Amino acid sequence: MDVASLEPRLLLGPGPSPVSERIRTAMAQPTLGHLDPQFLALLDDVNARLRLLFGTRNRTTFPLSGTGSAGMEAAMVNLIAPGDRVLVGVNGVFGTRLAEMGRRMGAEVVTIEAPWGEPIPEEQVIEALQAHPDARLLAIVHAETSTGVHQPLAEIGRFMRDGETLLVVDAVTSLGGTPVEVDAIGIDVCYSGTQKCLGVPPGLAPITFSERALERVRTRGGPPTSWYLDVSLIAGYLGAERRYHHTAPINLIYGLHESLVEIGEEGLEARYDRHAEAGALLRDELGERGFTPFTREGARLPQLTALHLPDGRDEGPLRKRLLEEHGIEVGGGLGPVAGKIWRIGLMGEGARPETVRQLVDAVDAILDGG
Amino acid sequence: MDVASLEPRLLLGPGPSPVSERIRTAMAQPTLGHLDPQFLALLDDVNARLRLLFGTRNRTTFPLSGTGSAGMEAAMVNLIAPGDRVLVGVNGVFGTRLAEMGRRMGAEVVTIEAPWGEPIPEEQVIEALQAHPDARLLAIVHAETSTGVHQPLAEIGRFMRDGETLLVVDAVTSLGGTPVEVDAIGIDVCYSGTQKCLGVPPGLAPITFSERALERVRTRGGPPTSWYLDVSLIAGYLGAERRYHHTAPINLIYGLHESLVEIGEEGLEARYDRHAEAGALLRDELGERGFTPFTREGARLPQLTALHLPDGRDEGPLRKRLLEEHGIEVGGGLGPVAGKIWRIGLMGEGARPETVRQLVDAVDAILDGG
Repeated sequence: MDVASLEPRLLLGPGPSPVSERIRTAMAQPTLGHLDPQFLALLDDVNARLRLLFGTRNRTTFPLSGTGSAGMEAAMVNLIAPGDRVLVGVNGVFGTRLAEMGRRMGAEVVTIEAPWGEPIPEEQVIEALQAHPDARLLAIVHAETSTGVHQPLAEIGRFMRDGETLLVVDAVTSLGGTPVEVDAIGIDVCYSGTQKCLGVPPGLAPITFSERALERVRTRGGPPTSWYLDVSLIAGYLGAERRYHHTAPINLIYGLHESLVEIGEEGLEARYDRHAEAGALLRDELGERGFTPFTREGARLPQLTALHLPDGRDEGPLRKRLLEEHGIEVGGGLGPVAGKIWRIGLMGEGARPETVRQLVDAVDAILDGG
Repeated sequence: MDVASLEPRLLLGPGPSPVSERIRTAMAQPTLGHLDPQFLALLDDVNARLRLLFGTRNRTTFPLSGTGSAGMEAAMVNLIAPGDRVLVGVNGVFGTRLAEMGRRMGAEVVTIEAPWGEPIPEEQVIEALQAHPDARLLAIVHAETSTGVHQPLAEIGRFMRDGETLLVVDAVTSLGGTPVEVDAIGIDVCYSGTQKCLGVPPGLAPITFSERALERVRTRGGPPTSWYLDVSLIAGYLGAERRYHHTAPINLIYGLHESLVEIGEEGLEARYDRHAEAGALLRDELGERGFTPFTREGARLPQLTALHLPDGRDEGPLRKRLLEEHGIEVGGGLGPVAGKIWRIGLMGEGARPETVRQLVDAVDAILDGG
């Protein structure tokens, strides 16, 4: 068993996405200490670049030392105290996970539900906010990785701007692939993961906290249950005092920095366009081959496409052949759609027409043969 | 700002430790999916090798997706329910952190204290266990990174074997540098970090749970507050069902695998001897130059040495010169010993006589010059 002998794959599932050689080379640079002035300067630069990507001026914007799910838990655990009422939009796995986390933290969770494959109508969310004006927060998923649904947020953000309820948004699969406008929408806490549209290996969760969210943390009456994810303690390391909290994942942060430099070179608009075009091409090509979208028109993410297979074909064996015979990974369904759909991610380096063509050729080969 | 232009350092602080080129190259291999059969086989191999290193047959042994402090939090949050009485040994920063985490989780924490620089006498721990036979767990630090103290555990383990109290041990700085005998001592949960004696960048926490600890998790009456660190959910991914929980930090796990292969090639005894010899050489060499040990004889870790500087020299400016003029990082003190000591780590690749000589030459240069 040897890392060097692993056979590479083309990663077109729901994440991780392909990692460029440039980013992998950056990750292989010599490790520095987490208090080394060189590393601290690099981290400051990462945080400044993350602000541009999140569309925010929030001072407290940084890569959390865990995967996207740790980002989700950090958002919730810093804001929630036992007994708080919490609203959660649920139309897939990740909304379900947010609700589960809230319950574990002792919150009274009210779910706002829509069918899998549909966004949650903004008016339905606003009605729930009106029914629960005392809610501590509303948590909602911008890009549902389990279904490929793109959740609209503009009206929700506009409605919430003058209230007390905080807006928490899961941007794990959107950040870097479709616009995430934290300040324009009025999001209080937004988190992502590195292994989707940023094209960095998993292990970091970019996250941002508004001043309003930090004020809630300061006045919550007792620290959050989690010490590791406590944003007040982490802010002590990020800030001028550079107070040791835990040892940051140095080499992964090298990779994230390189990705953010690449994104700066490409330009945000060009990057979003590239994702949109690759997604449209994929839907066209697979549509011609009898695949049908799981997610309704107008609510689809370009970077993650959920599809039923043609002619009721069994997805598992074909997905296995795609991996074994063609070295291409796509994802299956989760929960109620397990065994029923494919989830195809065109994220970061994967969002290119040549990738789509490579996938389509392989799909043709296995459909003809199967 | 560019990762490639970072100036390398010789990392002789309390961690991270130097990462070999071989491990950095492994980390730069193409990313695989977390459900790819190749990656799952590699992860199984990592876990098998971690069992050898921990000295355990525990099935549930794996690299947790976070740094050493996440390992600490996982140990505590899985076992503690609000109202539980918890004993914590405190003789430095990391015992203090364990106690703080316990309090945040709603435990009634009883501390067992010794001065910084001293181990906690085993009889004192046993008295506390006798005074609190209902304690849910005893948490204690095997290798205190803030002082370089090596905590004896054999008598404590022997005493606890027939009781109900679970033994949690922090082996962040010991694993891979000094023996950690989980099954022989009778440890229930033991966690470490990759950036110390394993010589891998920070970001993973190797951890192991005994069957007795897992039984406690199953019968605790309600899930732990943390979803991300819930060992029952993680075990569903590690086990035969391979149930998705979160996306593992693939490339860091490549690095950990390579380190464990290296350790296998070197042999555990040879590795422990190498750490012991390097530590002894360092103490001799710096002793001749007027440095005096902070930690008492017989209680010192070879891989982490805490020292007062000669002639009451001010540690900060000299440490800065060591970094800036010689590219060598050593650590300062934390908490009550901030500004008073150096902490020198000879861990993993750093535990070699040539490293000690390089440090000693640099120390000579700055002491002469200062």
